[in-house]
Parts: sequence; structure tokens; C-alpha cells
Amino acid sequence: MSGFEQVGDFAHLDTDRAQRRGYPEAIYCSGKSVEQVVGIAEAVRERSALFTRVTQEQQDALRKVLPGIMIDPVARLAAWPAQPPEPSGGTVLILCAGTSDLPVAKEAELTARYLGRDTELIADVGVAGIHRLLSYTEKIQAADAIVVAAGMDGALPSVVAGLASCPVVGLPTSVGYGAGQGGVAALLTMLNACAPGIGVVNIDNGYGAGHLAAQIAARK
Amino acid sequence: MSGFEQVGDFAHLDTDRAQRRGYPEAIYCSGKSVEQVVGIAEAVRERSALFTRVTQEQQDALRKVLPGIMIDPVARLAAWPAQPPEPSGGTVLILCAGTSDLPVAKEAELTARYLGRDTELIADVGVAGIHRLLSYTEKIQAADAIVVAAGMDGALPSVVAGLASCPVVGLPTSVGYGAGQGGVAALLTMLNACAPGIGVVNIDNGYGAGHLAAQIAARK
Amino acid sequence: MSGFEQVGDFAHLDTDRAQRRGYPEAIYCSGKSVEQVVGIAEAVRERSALFTRVTQEQQDALRKVLPGIMIDPVARLAAWPAQPPEPSGGTVLILCAGTSDLPVAKEAELTARYLGRDTELIADVGVAGIHRLLSYTEKIQAADAIVVAAGMDGALPSVVAGLASCPVVGLPTSVGYGAGQGGVAALLTMLNACAPGIGVVNIDNGYGAGHLAAQIAARK
Amino acid sequence: MSGFEQVGDFAHLDTDRAQRRGYPEAIYCSGKSVEQVVGIAEAVRERSALFTRVTQEQQDALRKVLPGIMIDPVARLAAWPAQPPEPSGGTVLILCAGTSDLPVAKEAELTARYLGRDTELIADVGVAGIHRLLSYTEKIQAADAIVVAAGMDGALPSVVAGLASCPVVGLPTSVGYGAGQGGVAALLTMLNACAPGIGVVNIDNGYGAGHLAAQIAARK
Amino acid sequence: MSGFEQVGDFAHLDTDRAQRRGYPEAIYCSGKSVEQVVGIAEAVRERSALFTRVTQEQQDALRKVLPGIMIDPVARLAAWPAQPPEPSGGTVLILCAGTSDLPVAKEAELTARYLGRDTELIADVGVAGIHRLLSYTEKIQAADAIVVAAGMDGALPSVVAGLASCPVVGLPTSVGYGAGQGGVAALLTMLNACAPGIGVVNIDNGYGAGHLAAQIAARK
Amino acid sequence: MSGFEQVGDFAHLDTDRAQRRGYPEAIYCSGKSVEQVVGIAEAVRERSALFTRVTQEQQDALRKVLPGIMIDPVARLAAWPAQPPEPSGGTVLILCAGTSDLPVAKEAELTARYLGRDTELIADVGVAGIHRLLSYTEKIQAADAIVVAAGMDGALPSVVAGLASCPVVGLPTSVGYGAGQGGVAALLTMLNACAPGIGVVNIDNGYGAGHLAAQIAARK
Amino acid sequence: MSGFEQVGDFAHLDTDRAQRRGYPEAIYCSGKSVEQVVGIAEAVRERSALFTRVTQEQQDALRKVLPGIMIDPVARLAAWPAQPPEPSGGTVLILCAGTSDLPVAKEAELTARYLGRDTELIADVGVAGIHRLLSYTEKIQAADAIVVAAGMDGALPSVVAGLASCPVVGLPTSVGYGAGQGGVAALLTMLNACAPGIGVVNIDNGYGAGHLAAQIAARK
Amino acid sequence: MSGFEQVGDFAHLDTDRAQRRGYPEAIYCSGKSVEQVVGIAEAVRERSALFTRVTQEQQDALRKVLPGIMIDPVARLAAWPAQPPEPSGGTVLILCAGTSDLPVAKEAELTARYLGRDTELIADVGVAGIHRLLSYTEKIQAADAIVVAAGMDGALPSVVAGLASCPVVGLPTSVGYGAGQGGVAALLTMLNACAPGIGVVNIDNGYGAGHLAAQIAARK
Repeated sequence: MSGFEQVGDFAHLDTDRAQRRGYPEAIYCSGKSVEQVVGIAEAVRERSALFTRVTQEQQDALRKVLPGIMIDPVARLAAWPAQPPEPSGGTVLILCAGTSDLPVAKEAELTARYLGRDTELIADVGVAGIHRLLSYTEKIQAADAIVVAAGMDGALPSVVAGLASCPVVGLPTSVGYGAGQGGVAALLTMLNACAPGIGVVNIDNGYGAGHLAAQIAARK
Repeated sequence: MSGFEQVGDFAHLDTDRAQRRGYPEAIYCSGKSVEQVVGIAEAVRERSALFTRVTQEQQDALRKVLPGIMIDPVARLAAWPAQPPEPSGGTVLILCAGTSDLPVAKEAELTARYLGRDTELIADVGVAGIHRLLSYTEKIQAADAIVVAAGMDGALPSVVAGLASCPVVGLPTSVGYGAGQGGVAALLTMLNACAPGIGVVNIDNGYGAGHLAAQIAARK
Repeated sequence: MSGFEQVGDFAHLDTDRAQRRGYPEAIYCSGKSVEQVVGIAEAVRERSALFTRVTQEQQDALRKVLPGIMIDPVARLAAWPAQPPEPSGGTVLILCAGTSDLPVAKEAELTARYLGRDTELIADVGVAGIHRLLSYTEKIQAADAIVVAAGMDGALPSVVAGLASCPVVGLPTSVGYGAGQGGVAALLTMLNACAPGIGVVNIDNGYGAGHLAAQIAARK
Repeated sequence: MSGFEQVGDFAHLDTDRAQRRGYPEAIYCSGKSVEQVVGIAEAVRERSALFTRVTQEQQDALRKVLPGIMIDPVARLAAWPAQPPEPSGGTVLILCAGTSDLPVAKEAELTARYLGRDTELIADVGVAGIHRLLSYTEKIQAADAIVVAAGMDGALPSVVAGLASCPVVGLPTSVGYGAGQGGVAALLTMLNACAPGIGVVNIDNGYGAGHLAAQIAARK
Repeated sequence: MSGFEQVGDFAHLDTDRAQRRGYPEAIYCSGKSVEQVVGIAEAVRERSALFTRVTQEQQDALRKVLPGIMIDPVARLAAWPAQPPEPSGGTVLILCAGTSDLPVAKEAELTARYLGRDTELIADVGVAGIHRLLSYTEKIQAADAIVVAAGMDGALPSVVAGLASCPVVGLPTSVGYGAGQGGVAALLTMLNACAPGIGVVNIDNGYGAGHLAAQIAARK
Repeated sequence: MSGFEQVGDFAHLDTDRAQRRGYPEAIYCSGKSVEQVVGIAEAVRERSALFTRVTQEQQDALRKVLPGIMIDPVARLAAWPAQPPEPSGGTVLILCAGTSDLPVAKEAELTARYLGRDTELIADVGVAGIHRLLSYTEKIQAADAIVVAAGMDGALPSVVAGLASCPVVGLPTSVGYGAGQGGVAALLTMLNACAPGIGVVNIDNGYGAGHLAAQIAARK
Repeated sequence: MSGFEQVGDFAHLDTDRAQRRGYPEAIYCSGKSVEQVVGIAEAVRERSALFTRVTQEQQDALRKVLPGIMIDPVARLAAWPAQPPEPSGGTVLILCAGTSDLPVAKEAELTARYLGRDTELIADVGVAGIHRLLSYTEKIQAADAIVVAAGMDGALPSVVAGLASCPVVGLPTSVGYGAGQGGVAALLTMLNACAPGIGVVNIDNGYGAGHLAAQIAARK
Repeated sequence: MSGFEQVGDFAHLDTDRAQRRGYPEAIYCSGKSVEQVVGIAEAVRERSALFTRVTQEQQDALRKVLPGIMIDPVARLAAWPAQPPEPSGGTVLILCAGTSDLPVAKEAELTARYLGRDTELIADVGVAGIHRLLSYTEKIQAADAIVVAAGMDGALPSVVAGLASCPVVGLPTSVGYGAGQGGVAALLTMLNACAPGIGVVNIDNGYGAGHLAAQIAARK
């Protein structure tokens, strides 16, 4: 059986994925050695790929092995090739509740963009001052998919889903402290949202949220 | 040392409480035998008291030992004497997110009323259709204390606190299922609210929420 | 502000929802009295609505107040009017891991159908005998949205998402025991899926899964 | 719609808040970059604001951009302008169970003071030597709002609420270890207090406790 | 190797226990069939034993097989023979926070008495009205071992240990609801008590608490 | 692709399993309707199968559709055909800590026997009287696989593994209460055993334990 | 009311404690500044005291302010004065399951010794090789109180209590990883011990275990 | 009683273990001082032993005291003597889901090899691209024991067990983030696997997994 490529004795790259699923590979870099990341980068040189949760040391190595690669240090994301595809399908709107949610929200935005969607990000529109959110009602109702990143109480997706006709991707973040339990409170809030139409991803999983939103908005 | 009254070998009634704290005793009836509830009821006949979480069997017994006692079977609350005190202080507004939160919300409302406050209850104004809540903005801004009962995502107190100048009592309910964990999700949401000004009580603790709101609104 | 209708003192129906969100109201019947359900049913007689988690007693009452209403006792779902809308958009495929997941899976299927989608349900294709699932690969790759219901290990959505180009809605069920913790294990598995493209809903939330899938598949 | 001010592409300051809620803005600085904090500080120069959980690096930057700003390094709180408002309303009493709870307790005290209340803080009066607490009974009965900070067993608010007529704000701290679970044990204790009249805030949320107490004591 | 007696194919009675440990056997009856309990009862007829958590059906069977056996239906405890041993050693004082804690507290008291100690039980002296507890300070300081049963906040053992020179056995009960989590909140409070000198047993484990207290007070 | 058989629209029986894995199918009956169990029973009439967690109503139906089927009501297990296979391989020893663990232990024993192994079960040899266990040291050292069922503290597998050369299957049971958390305490104990050589299965999963032990002991 | 001494504005030393409880004060140093520890040390110079969880920096400061103070860096405990009291009462035996439990076990031993008991510590006698423990059966049966420190599975106290006539103090440690959850697994094991006679203290609370054991063994 | 060797006052080496259990001792080095590890190393010089979770500093010390010792820094494992025994019994196959699981998987592989088995490790064959795993079906069906290491969703063992006739050791790893809870999600998935034949070990316990697999595969 084919459809994969072995890299050293440590990886089986899923070369069939772009054809089977329609989106390129992504390399989760946390817990991988620099040597392993470099080996994989060399293997994907002729294809396209995303590298997520890239450490500073891994970023430096990637810049050497894939010159010109796009790296966003805040989102800890690298994209190869650096030029995103021409946008197709609908628009992905990313909302985040607070300024501190931005790194995760940007990971979602960049992922959606490198998977081929137009994106827009609006930050710091949490429910504590709901007039801020309501001033963007038109954009919410025009979007084809919405990612809502929120930590602490995680209440924003409930309100946004109640205003939107398109699906909402709930993206809990680990922003907060104490009973927030590293994002668990926000996660539970989103899973128990009283408004239907929310699909939830893992805490701080900006990549997964952007991927799901890109799939949802693939058709306009 | 005085300030209490022994009832049989099973209770030490805190007779000093009305003077020390300003509010009458309350008897938590869950886990008490009918005989114990009756014994306590006889002891408070000349004073005033609330009985919370009263079972059907306990309600029947209370009606016999304290004829004319007020009993609300939905809120599972009994009040003696049946006539609430003349309202003083400010107004306590009770909001609840869904119809299913009503039993707990009513326990809060009745408690506040029997502790001497004017009350108003508005049901089913959860964040999934936020225009319902916003239509009550004036009442929210005029209240002296607000109790917000919500299960599932528990997101309503965050939004209400962001609209109010008075304190908000967050009252999580066990309404919901699955990852709601019997009200724990709503509880965590309220504890992590991004709007300040919320004091949270235990899940389904309508009595505690009403008591706290009555204390807050004691002065107008 | 308009957009809602008060029913008695216990409900604010969100009459604006069909226009704002594109899908009719749904009434969560758990914890509501028969009288409250009847009151709401009378109010929606001229519109369309879903009633979820309907008890036997509530089902009997609904049949009287809305003669001819569709009621599925396994899914505990009622739909009014009984005739689903003409299908539009794409197809929603529902997969479930085991026979015991069927009630929740059917709630998802019926919801998607009453929100206007073509649906197909395939039961008992869990990962313990993976050849069963793989025999349906073509259907998986042809679907516009897939709901995957699974209890116990909740591993099925990870495998399905790896085979599909469309989004997958992960629907954990409370099927299982012990360390399954009433569906929490399956929920966590889905949130931590190593394949991107999965949006997760609450445990046993067939309604929410069907709603989300219907939204995703709205455009073909 | 107005009522907010955009700062760069990372913040929507809620400029309407002082008028709507009666208290100035607060900036949660954890997870924000120094540049973001500086940008926000410049935007609030002509208004008043609190900055919470300020790191050493952020403190240095704030001193440059808002010369003379009040910074308490133990409470990690900055207040602008440095001069608190003339006290009005009643008195907020802050009690803390142990010396190690002081940083959080001081955040609560400073918040209440900068929101306009007279404050007094008494440290190290935990229940292990209850005669220490009882020696302050008069102050407890004279207060208009009481914040009780406690880690470990979190038992102090139960006892204090039993002695007080005014509301108590339960402020669990992360002081402790092992089964204390970073403050969860203290949080649960306060939520389950057998004395009514306690509103609980998040673990280590001195700012929220002080804000709530200031609101409660606004009227004397 | 000897030291035990086989009963049918379902039990190995630890006949060596009274000699090795100094206290007779106890049979945990929850989950045992009536036939199994009867078989064990017959085997211990010539010795002494306690039967804990005895159901109504098991109680009826025990009365037949061991005529005259002492059975306390509230504590769900049976003791054989019915006559407790002559008291020796010191006194075990049992305190309970609320009336609803009495069944568990009585299981502790009866266990200590049947293991040979003098006992005294004082009910309903929780910390919400601390003057009730303080009126018993002399008894607390005179005891040789103290069992403190409390549900909800579980705060009572912390206060009692701060007043006592003898060891305190913390006995959390499942009294309470919501965030009490079936006694977990009370358990955590006791484990994190700020006063040293508390040994904690399992939630509702009155038998274990009474056994430990009897051992502690064995020597006067 | 073949290897399965559809039963109605609710099951895909894995007919390939006996050949692929070496052991017959097992039907998890919890959550299945009587009709579904009957349908599956008819489909396996010519093969062999186990039915686990069979309710009384399902047992009655199975006896009709598969006359002579072996049903153990304590273990809630049914086996078809009733005659177990001739034993092969080594011996599976089942130990259980208390009498109350017997139903789960018997499910394990019967499973191993119907999968082709010789079995022996020894009950009530928990660590509280360790001489009982030590008297069986020879049997422990002679076994080819050992299942150890224990609730409460779940300590028995650690001790047994320290005495055995063969693998131990840790089988936590839900016997216990309070902080036992329905078997979670026993589960965690076994996962953290200080003796290597223990593989743990789910709480109360006697079937899984017996299956694993049968596989381990397949070769002597 | 007297019975305490104020130190700065940060501490109320419980000077009454030695007389009321029979044991000197202990200062929990975690979370306290060096200045605060020094201030307290100066205040207790004429009395005796223990300092627990002392950091390296605090140790250095204590040596200056209380020259000659006993400091054990492994147990992180300081005792003043350095000379323990003449032993009285019975003997406290400390057992620990593994070498890694030694720091916590030593904190327990030193505490018991400085509170006036004879002590003996035996390390690395966990249940994985039970013959090691059994070789100390005589010492176990001769002790007046036993502290058993164990991490990982926490199974040792169950076995020891089954061999002893005196009370056992269960001291869970945070030794372990993964599902050990920082000592929670060991804690739960001890709380659910099938042998009675165990009082459990908080994870890593060597001080509390030693204090409780010293109280238990006060009388011989 | 013999069977152990005391090392200093900190260890009781279980010298009887190789004879009693058939496998040499292993020293868990986490939490041990360098001096303690050195002392133990000297004691086992004439025997064989494994050292697990060895820190860099401990590795350096081991190289000095046992020259030529085998140390794998990725697996943090040391083996003495460096030459593994001649392979006997069957083959242990180790599969891991992702590259980041390799350190734990290698600890399992090396353990099995030093306990006397032939081993093979295949990395990065997780379920997101299931064709990678299926290409190894023959090896899976030929193995005598299989260790499956997986983090995140932990779904791989369920699929592998469904393909294998030999037992599977589920080895959850802490790879992942957020709701993965440090490996708890993967652990729960494996415990709730819908395929029988899986024995689970603690999170990141490569040593335990390798030991168990070696025992299972001891006979071919």
C-alpha cells in the first residue's frame, strides 16, 4: 500500500492527504527534535505544509532548510510555501474576546488563509461590553464561517451563534486563571452553549479551528 | 453562653441569628426526618423562619404543625409566618436564562421577598437571543441587586453584569446534561466571568442567592 | 424592541430566530412542566418548531395540542409540522459506532432532516472491526457533512475525519460505563483528535449535532 | 454604534463603561505584550483606569508612559491616576486567613479604595486560633461589605458570615498545596458555606472581590 | 497458614484480626447478597462482629440468624453480641455540624462504643453560629478523641482542632448538593485544614471514624 | 469488502472476528432494545457468541431465541453455545479482594473459560488481612495469567504482581463509596502500581479482563 | 481578648496555642517574604516554634536571626530551639514506601520528635516486595503511632493498618507521574483503604502527619 | 527474613525479585539524589538492573560508577550490564501514533529488549491516515505482544487490538495539550476501548509497558 513516505525511522508522512482530504499536511512540532523537524521539512520541500507550535529553535532551523518560509512568531506557525493560495470559497471571520486571546486567534486566521480562504480578524469584543460586539452584527451575518476564540468565561460563542446563520467554531483559550483551569471553563461553556450551531475544538487549538472553518467555508 | 435553643438531641437552633445577622433562621430540610422537621417547626412557632428543600411529606407535616404556612411546591420553600414583611430597602431583580431554571429562580425570589425586599422575576431571557435581554436594559439599570439564574453555559450573568451598576448574584443551576456536569459548567462560567461585579453561590442554591441579594439591596 | 413573544410568565419565544438564523425554534423540554410545554406548543401552532428530550407525558400532551405532530420516541424528538421541508443543499451522513448509540444518532438525523437536508444513517461501524467502516469509504468521501456518534472510546471521528474532505461533527454519547464517566472519555477523545476537521458538541446532544451539520451542508 | 475606542488592531476599549456601570475600566495585563499595554495606557491617559496582574516589565513601561502612576508590586496592581477618589459610601473590611494570602487581599483592598471606598485590612486571623477573629467582632458587625481571603481550607468566610449582617465576598486564594488543588478546595468550601450571605469570586481574583465589595458598599 | 476461616466460596473471614489488631471483625454488607450475609453471620455466632451499611432486607435476615442482635436502622449498623463491652480507656466525643449529618455521626458513635469506649454525641453545632460550638469548649478540651462529622463546607474540624489538645478525626459527609459533589468539598476542606491534628477518613465512613477514634482513645 | 453481516438497520456483526482475532464475537447488551438483542441472537445461532451486561428482560428473550443458552445472572453474562470449548493453553487465576467484587470477578472467570482456558477463582483475599493472600502464594506463582478484581483502595494487584512471574490484569470494581468515586480510586491505584507487570482494564469490565487474560494464557 | 501577638501588619501569632493545644506554634513559610519570616522569628525568640517549607533564602535568614537554629534542608524544616524536648509518651514509627518519599517522611519524623516523641524511620518497604515490610512486623506491632508515607499507588497504609493495633496516619506523597495526579491517586487509595484505623492528611503534609502522630502517641 | 539488601538508610533492594518474578530490579530515579542513585548502583554491580527516568546528572554519575553502562538519553533509561540477554520467547512489536511519542515508545522497547525479547518499533502510524497502519497488518498479526503508544486522542490501540490476536499493551503518553490534560484523555480512551484485549499502563510509563509486554511474550 502506498500513500505515505517514510522519513528516517521517526515519521510516516501522509502524502495522500492533500488528494484524499483536499488540504495539505501539517506538522505538529511540539515534542519533536530540531533534527526531526528538519528531516520532515526536507521531505515536504516540493509540496506544501504547515508547521504548528514551532519553537524559536525550530523556527531558526526551518528558515535555513526552507529559505523564505513564512513564520509568524506570535502564532508560532510556519507555512510553506510562503505565498498562500489564491482565496476561494467564502470568508472566514475570526472574533476574539480579549487581547490576550490573539495568539491563538491568529493561528486560526493564518491556517484558514493558507488553506485558501479570505479571512478577517476582530479582536477584543467580549461580552462584558456587548455593544462592541453588536456593532459588528452585519459582518457576523455576512460571514461563511466564524471562529470565536475566548478564554475565561468562554461566553462569546453563545452570543455570536445566536446572531449568525453560518456555523460557529468555538475555540476555547487557556487565558484566565484559578477556576478557569487552563481553559477548561471556557471549553465547558462552549460545549454547553444554549445556542445551537457551534462546533468546539480543543483548548488553544487555533490550527484545528482554522482548518475546520476553512472546510466549512469552502463553498460559497 | 446563650443564643441558641436545643431541640431534642438533634438540633441547636440559632435563636440569636435574627438579632446578630438581621435575618431569621432557615431550616435546610433535605436529609432531615419528618419528625425532626416537625420538632423544629414547633420550636419556631413564635418566631419567623424559612424551610428550604421541603419534600412533599415534609410539606404535609408542616401544614399541620404550622397551619396557614406559605408553601411554594415549585420552589420547595415554606415560609412562616405566611405574610412576608413590609418591603424595605431597594428592589431585587431576578432574571433566569431558560424556563427550566424557574424553580431555582423562584426560590431566590421568595427568599428575598420574605427577607423584606420588593422583587421582580423575568424568565427565559438567555443569550441565544440577546434582543430579549436587551429589551429589559432599563430594569437592569434600575435594580438594586440582580440575581441571574442560568444553567447550561451559564453565560447570562457575564452579559448582565456588563450592563448593570449594581452587584449581580450569579446563581448556576443544574439544568443541562453531559458536559454540563450537573451545573459545574455554569458555575465555572460565572466564576470566570470577564465582567466584574458578580458574586457566585452554589449550584441550585436559590435560597443563598436570594439571601445575599436581600442583604445587598437592604439599603436604597 | 420586538422579535420575541411572551408566553405566560415563563417563556420569551425567539420569534425572530427563523429570519435571523435561518432555522426554526427548538424547545428543550427537559425540566419543563407539561403545562409549560403545552403553552409553548399553542404559541408555535402557526409556525414550525422542534421539541427535544420530550418525556412520555409531554409527548401525550403534544399529540393533543398539535394533532398529527411527528414524534420519534427513540430520539425523544417531536417536529411540527410533521412534514419535513423539501430537502435542499447537500447530504448529511450520520455514522454511529455501536447499536447503543442509535437514539442519539437518530436525534441528529431527524434534526438535520427537519432543517432541510437529505440524510443517511449507518449504524454499528466502530473501529474494533475497521473493515466495516472502510467498506463505506465512498459514502464518506461523497458527503457534505458527517455526524459521527460514538460512546466508550469515542475513537471513530478521528478515523472518519482522516478519510473525509468535508467537516465532521463529533457527537460523543454517554454509552459506556466506569472510566467512560458518562461520555466524558468519548468527549475528550474527540476534542483531542489527531485529525483536523472535527467540531465537537456536548455529550448526547443529537439536536445540536444535527443542527450544525445542517448548517454546514446548507450549500452544495 | 459608539461607546468604545479601537486601539491598534488588538483592543476595543469600553469607553462607555464608567457611565454605564459607574466604575472605570480595568486592563487585565496577563498575556498582553508590553507594546499592547503601552498602547492601551496611552489611550486612557485622560481617563482613569486600573491595570491588574502587571508584570515587572509592564510596570517599568507603565511608569514611563504614565509618569507618577501608582504601582503596588505585591498586589501587582497599577492605578491611574495615582490619587484615589474621595471616599464615599460605606467601609469595606478585608480579612485574610494567613499571611501568605496578603498579595491577593491587598489587590482587593486597593481595588475597593480606587473605586471610592474607605477600606481596612486585617491579616492572619484564620480559624485555627478562632480567638484572633472573635477579637474583631465589632469591626465585622460595623462593616458595610467584607472581603474574606483564604486559601487552604477556605473556612474563614463561613465563620465571618455567621457573625456579620452585611454581605461577605468570598475570595479563595491558591495558597496551599496537594489536595488544595491550587485553590479549588478553598473555592468549594466557600461555595458550600453553611452560612448564607456569601458571594464567591474566582481563585486569586482580588480585583473582582474588591470591585464587588465596592459596589455593595456604595450606599451607606 | 491459618488465621482465617473460609465461608462457602465467597469469603475468607479474618479470624486472626481480634488478636492481631485488638478489635473484632466488621462485615461491609453493601453489595453482598442476603445469603452471603447470613452465611457470614452464622460463622461469627461464637465471636463478636459489626455489620455495616446493612439494608432493610439484610437486617431482617440478621435478626433471624442472630436473635437479639443490636440493629440501629438510622446508622444502618448491626452489632453482635448486642451488649457492648465494658468501657475502657478514654472518652470519644462526636460532634456533628448539622442535623442531617446524624446518621453518619451515629455510625461513628456506635462503632466506638462497641469497640469499648465511652462516647458522647453533640449535634448541630456548625460554624454558621459559632457560639453554639464555643459553649462546648470544656467538653472539647476534656475529650480523648473527637470525631467531627460535617458536610457542605466541612469547616467544623478546622475550628475544633484549633480548640483541642487531643486528635480530631475528620468525617466528611455527603450532606449538601451542587458544588458539594457528594461530600468531596467537605473532604477537601478537612484535608486542607489550617489547624494540625486532624486525620481524615472517607466520605460517610462513620465506621472508620469510630474505629480510629476508639484506637486513639484506647489509652487514657 | 466482506467480513461482516448486517442485522436490520442497527448492527454490522463482525463475522470476520473469530478468524482475524481468534475469539468469537461479544454483544454488549446495555442500551440495546430486546428486539435488537433478539435480532443479533438469531444471526449468531450458527456461530458462537457472548452476551454481556444482559438485563433480566434480555435474558428471558435470549432463552427463547437460543434454547439452552448458558446464563449467569450474577455475572449478567450469557454464552452460546452453552458448552465451553475444551480448555487449552494455561490457567487463568482470578482473585478478588472482597465478597462484593464477586459479580465482576465471575464475569471475568466465565469469559476466560468460554474463550478456552482453565480457570480458578479465589474470593475475599484483600490486603487488610494479608495472611489470607499469602496462603495462596503457590497458586499465584503457578498461574499463567492472573486477574485481580478489587474496589475501594484497589491495592491488591500491586501486592499480587510483586509475588507473580506471569502478567496480572488489574480489574477495578465500583465497590465502595464516597471518595472511591465509583471505582476511580481503585483504577488510579492500579495504574500507579509500584510493581510492574499489571495491565489495567476499565472499571467493572470483567469481560475485558477475562478476554485479555485468556489471550495472555493462550500459550503454556 | 488576648492570646495572640501582632507582628507588623501581617501576622497574629497564636501565643495561646501551646497552652490551649499542648504544642508550640508552626510557621508555614511558603508564600511568605523573607522579611515576614524574619519578623515572626524575632517574635518567637523566647518561645519555641517550627518553620515548615522553608526556602533556601529563608533558611539563610533564619540562621542569622536565630543563631543555632536546627535546619534540615531535605525536609525543609527548621526548629527552634535546636534541642528537641526530652521524649515522653510512646514511640512514633515512620515507614515510607520508596526512597523518593524520604523528604516528606523526614518532615513527619522531625515534627514528631520536636513535639516530644521518640521516633524511628524505615525507608523503602513498599508493597512490590512485601517480604521487606513483613520483616518489620514486630516493630509495627510495638509502635504507639505509625506514619506511613507513600506516593504512586499509596497501597502501603492499607497493608500496615492490617498488621497494627495502633492508629496509622496515612501520608500521601506527590511521588509519581501521569495518572498519579501529583499524589491524588495515593490520597484516594488511603481514603478508601479496606483496613480501618487510618487517618489521612494532605498530600506531602509531613508536618501534619508528624503532629497528629505525636498527639496519638502522647500517652503510652 | 531475607530476600533484600539494605543500602544506607534509604533503600531496601529487593534481591529476591529476579528469582521470584523472573526479571531483574529496576530503579525509579526520579526524586532520588545522585548520592542515592550511586549507592544503589554500587550495590547492584554484580547483578543486573535497569535505571528509569535518569536525569543528566544521574547519567553522568552512573557512567562513573558502572563504566560501560548502556544509557539512552532519549528514553532516559540506563541498563546494566550493557549487553542485553540473548532473546528468547516471542517478539514484541511497539507502535507509536506520532513522532512525539517516540521517547516513551523507546523506553518500552528497550525495557522489553533488556528483559529478553526481540523487539521492533514502528513510529508515526496514527489513525489520522489509517492506510499507514494498515500497511503493517501482517506484522501486527505476527507479533506475540504489541505495545501501542499514543497521546492526544489515544485512539490507536482500539484499532490495533481489532486487528490483532495477541494482547495489546495500551501506553498513553502526555503528548498533546488543553483538554488532553497531560495524557488523561488518551488514558481514558484506552480504558474505554471498544475492542477487547487491551491492558493499559500509566501515562508515559514506557518501562511498565515494556515489562508487561516482555512477560506476555515470554512464551512463543
